[in-house]
Amino acid sequence: MPSGGLEIEQLIQLLARLPGLGPRSARRAVLHMIKKKEQLMLPLSAALDRAVMAVKTCEICGNIDTVSPCSICSDPRRGDSGILIVVEDVSDLWAMERAAPGQVRYHVLGGVLSPLDGVGPDDLNLDMLISRAPDCSEIVLAMNATVDGQTTAHYITDRLGPGIKVTRLAHGVPIGGELDYLDEGTLSQALKARTQI
Amino acid sequence: MPSGGLEIEQLIQLLARLPGLGPRSARRAVLHMIKKKEQLMLPLSAALDRAVMAVKTCEICGNIDTVSPCSICSDPRRGDSGILIVVEDVSDLWAMERAAPGQVRYHVLGGVLSPLDGVGPDDLNLDMLISRAPDCSEIVLAMNATVDGQTTAHYITDRLGPGIKVTRLAHGVPIGGELDYLDEGTLSQALKARTQI
Repeated sequence: MPSGGLEIEQLIQLLARLPGLGPRSARRAVLHMIKKKEQLMLPLSAALDRAVMAVKTCEICGNIDTVSPCSICSDPRRGDSGILIVVEDVSDLWAMERAAPGQVRYHVLGGVLSPLDGVGPDDLNLDMLISRAPDCSEIVLAMNATVDGQTTAHYITDRLGPGIKVTRLAHGVPIGGELDYLDEGTLSQALKARTQI
Repeated sequence: MPSGGLEIEQLIQLLARLPGLGPRSARRAVLHMIKKKEQLMLPLSAALDRAVMAVKTCEICGNIDTVSPCSICSDPRRGDSGILIVVEDVSDLWAMERAAPGQVRYHVLGGVLSPLDGVGPDDLNLDMLISRAPDCSEIVLAMNATVDGQTTAHYITDRLGPGIKVTRLAHGVPIGGELDYLDEGTLSQALKARTQI
């Protein structure tokens, strides 16, 4: 055992499994929290215990929250627009919500179709989406701009059928992006979809 | 509240205060652990609870362990060499111990002298070091190669007096390092301290 006791070593190993942390940064993080035991380690331990108890997956949209249906699904003002944004993952939902807070409803697929990884339509939260669709005026497919994401978007468009307005996010130059660093595909899309100023 | 419930938001904010994590990576880490609730979130919560209870600071050397005196101080074989390595911080102790496991004893200062930050001799774990010194055959000052670290090393050398053999770590080219990227100070030290092959 290189350092500390068994309990400290176990904590380091578990923290090292979080994305963005490795063995070295997990060790630094544990030392830091031990040094700030009162201000950081005790509150973090309590917060983690509380979160473990409280976390729920929303039965309607698949969002993660402490209530189900989640606070987004049970917000009556969000129904007004009739817009439902379909995302791959909860992190995408949170990202969209930061960009345009409090306006629309969401649906989390829980992944994308990926034959190579053995992910088929039955592995995604699709049936619930189909059943929610008739109540929406527009369904925005906000999958990642990857091959699997776009394949999934095509599949969902087919499943939804012609009666529903289905849109996708615009492709183009990211705000603050430099043309020189952009790939040709994005630039060509941005040129095609140019808008008058 | 941008996303998730209050409990999730609090957990993200506390995790974001760990070194190496920011708001964005803390959010990703929390989502990851919620998705792997059984394999990661529950064990992590339990490990953190156990570590909070178990963590102790060694009354002799200042190391962090689950027992005091720590497992290093109470290891009888480490006394044979008579070597005591003085480090700034527990992370430095762990780093030295990974480099040369199971051989020597340590003393953690808990910082370095830094008049600008108001850190004086009384703020460091120095009295215990002075009282441990007579039992040692050699004291290795392994402070960081910074101005404050080297000032502290000089101060400790003065305090220890002439009766005790005091050494410092070698300065030179890091293993795997390229001369082109090294600063002049290191290179000049490496040249001065060249050894015959």
